[in-house]
Amino acid sequence: MRIDIGAALDATATPGVPPDALDRLDDRVAHAHDRITAGMDGDEFGYAALNLPRTVDVDAITAAADAVADADTLVTVGIGGSALGAATLVDALGDDDLDYHALDNVDPAHVTRLLDRIDLSTSAVHVVSRSGTTAETLANFLVVRDAMDDAGVDWTARTLVTTGDDGPLRALADTHDLPVLDAPRGVPGRFAALSTVALPAAAIAGVDVGELVAGAADGRAALAGSLEDCSAYAYGATAYALDQRGAGVNAMLPYAERLETFAEWFAQLWAESLGKDGVGQTPARALGATDQHSQLQLYRAGPRDKLVTMLRPASRPDCAIPEAELADIDYLTGGDLGALLDAEFEATAASLAASGVPTVRVEVPAVDARSVGRLLFDFEAACVLAGELYGVETFTQPAVEWGKNAARELLRGEDPLPETETHIVE
Amino acid sequence: MRIDIGAALDATATPGVPPDALDRLDDRVAHAHDRITAGMDGDEFGYAALNLPRTVDVDAITAAADAVADADTLVTVGIGGSALGAATLVDALGDDDLDYHALDNVDPAHVTRLLDRIDLSTSAVHVVSRSGTTAETLANFLVVRDAMDDAGVDWTARTLVTTGDDGPLRALADTHDLPVLDAPRGVPGRFAALSTVALPAAAIAGVDVGELVAGAADGRAALAGSLEDCSAYAYGATAYALDQRGAGVNAMLPYAERLETFAEWFAQLWAESLGKDGVGQTPARALGATDQHSQLQLYRAGPRDKLVTMLRPASRPDCAIPEAELADIDYLTGGDLGALLDAEFEATAASLAASGVPTVRVEVPAVDARSVGRLLFDFEAACVLAGELYGVETFTQPAVEWGKNAARELLRGEDPLPETETHIVE
Repeated sequence: MRIDIGAALDATATPGVPPDALDRLDDRVAHAHDRITAGMDGDEFGYAALNLPRTVDVDAITAAADAVADADTLVTVGIGGSALGAATLVDALGDDDLDYHALDNVDPAHVTRLLDRIDLSTSAVHVVSRSGTTAETLANFLVVRDAMDDAGVDWTARTLVTTGDDGPLRALADTHDLPVLDAPRGVPGRFAALSTVALPAAAIAGVDVGELVAGAADGRAALAGSLEDCSAYAYGATAYALDQRGAGVNAMLPYAERLETFAEWFAQLWAESLGKDGVGQTPARALGATDQHSQLQLYRAGPRDKLVTMLRPASRPDCAIPEAELADIDYLTGGDLGALLDAEFEATAASLAASGVPTVRVEVPAVDARSVGRLLFDFEAACVLAGELYGVETFTQPAVEWGKNAARELLRGEDPLPETETHIVE
Repeated sequence: MRIDIGAALDATATPGVPPDALDRLDDRVAHAHDRITAGMDGDEFGYAALNLPRTVDVDAITAAADAVADADTLVTVGIGGSALGAATLVDALGDDDLDYHALDNVDPAHVTRLLDRIDLSTSAVHVVSRSGTTAETLANFLVVRDAMDDAGVDWTARTLVTTGDDGPLRALADTHDLPVLDAPRGVPGRFAALSTVALPAAAIAGVDVGELVAGAADGRAALAGSLEDCSAYAYGATAYALDQRGAGVNAMLPYAERLETFAEWFAQLWAESLGKDGVGQTPARALGATDQHSQLQLYRAGPRDKLVTMLRPASRPDCAIPEAELADIDYLTGGDLGALLDAEFEATAASLAASGVPTVRVEVPAVDARSVGRLLFDFEAACVLAGELYGVETFTQPAVEWGKNAARELLRGEDPLPETETHIVE
């Protein structure tokens, strides 16, 4: 990917990064790159994610997908990193004729509504839980399976599983002889999009998984020990440097509808990897041009605590704006929708620069498999680099355990919750 | 609505509001309420939004909707406040058998894809622009109209317009004798959900618009000069007081899939109304329980700059989790999906409290028309109150004009953008 950090430097932005601070930071980038390289070489926990472009078995994934390729509906049963990668890839690249749903919440109103709406006999279900113990995923799958039974559908013929070596989901798959893909070892869910976790959904949606992986491999080959030579590291280092100077919010603003879910994937990657020990930049998910009519007022005139990451493809399909009988809109008619969107991108970038809000521009060649594979890899690498700079444990998420355990105890009828003060207004 | 600010007080949270500070703030709430009441009495710009429950003409809206009630697909052509209200109401309450799309972006890839997918002959199109000049909306409508022409559909029979007294969209509607609903005077788009801007879409989607308005009227009747007597003001005052103490981010976390778009509506309301003059809380859109597996790590262990607003309905439909042949998940099976979701809500609230992160709990009776009408009204009132406390011009959005003008000039072939520094890494 191509990034431009010019408008994040202190000549334009406040907060902004002074060029000499960027030079000094580059020494730390070189050191972090050594650490990352060593982690990759040793296939260490987390760092193993950056090896996926060469360790993932594309043939096994496409073969598993082929077995349910006749499906007209695909449901990913997973949550967090076990769903967002698949949703990101299918939303960005999937065939229009596949009806796709990520069943990544346990709202009974939503689950029953979805099951009423789809034809289970022509659906494929991909159940994903690396631990095999995720409460939401197991509960949802039991509900889906029951609905398939009720509809007279042989659920064992429509279900594909991705999980680890043991746990309830592995046991269930073994009992019923379901096709199982192994979750990659040492790769946290939010770093697992380019693996058996999310690629099967992409394959079922008609995406060229080989191209996705090739794009990721391009990103891997481009890793280098200086932010001046590596766009992924340049992004991670700039975001970190801005956060140190007060930009505690990172608004991800893609100018492409099909990358809207990418912003959500990014939000998990950034929040869960870096949000610990009292530090971490808060991701805000946005969409251009839509959010110019929602968030831009705040970005431009609110507190100076934001980096705005502006992402766009260099090429778009054509869609002419017809001539019309209307006065005062000659600047629009006879043009193209893509030109309008790109003009808004440029104008918004300039308007943020004019008010001193730091932006980073990210450009990918197109919203195609190779570019999206590269995009995901590069942001993962950027996040790993940022984690090294913050000095946090990038690959764990210890703060969510308390709530998980408490929820389980509540459901067992125990009373694990401490008293808290109430102050109710009705 | 019912709110609990107990876990936002300084006995639990850091930052937290000291009870005596809340008492002092209540004097300012009383003063602000007087200002708001005067604004409502005078139907002043912006404040007029809070009069919508008695000024909106429900019969005219339902009559206009009835004319296209046979549609199986509805497309709202609008952007920002002219789309988000409709999307919020339809996503929360609309019939499952209506295929709904908010065409609120000008991405050619997305627009052409949508138009390829839907049957225009059985679609209704609601075009919404209060000014009648919004570039994205006019461009998209011209593309949609052209597609209808190409498909041999009489677009004038399928199109409903909401706009102001003049401008290109009014002219177009007059020329072709289209049914037009007047946009409410003195009501900015983000405060216009409970009007001709969004209610027609709700009506076409089968929502009882009278109940929505009745819910809003409940909220209006509940406005009172103390935060102890008015849940809307209690929310706005608490959010403001926390922001003053460092909680610059407000994460809206509904535990209901159908309120996911409400979080987006809230994000516009909060950002565009309060984000000015260097102040304003940054809204973060989230969804429970899904974001426990994405954002919770950051909320709980990252910087202490967040208020988490936890929203849920008091009642949910049933959806049993079937018994299963799996070991170790006895706590789940035989239970209900809603009980699981509610246990996660309680556990997450407790886990945030345990680490001192301020939360406000908001409860509505159900996700039904009356409750949703009340919810939207109450958050609008909360926002107006917060605007009075911040001392900002709640109802304007001046910072977006620069970019709008620059985009227009770019499309006219002019060169309005100042040079900015570039620093490119590939």
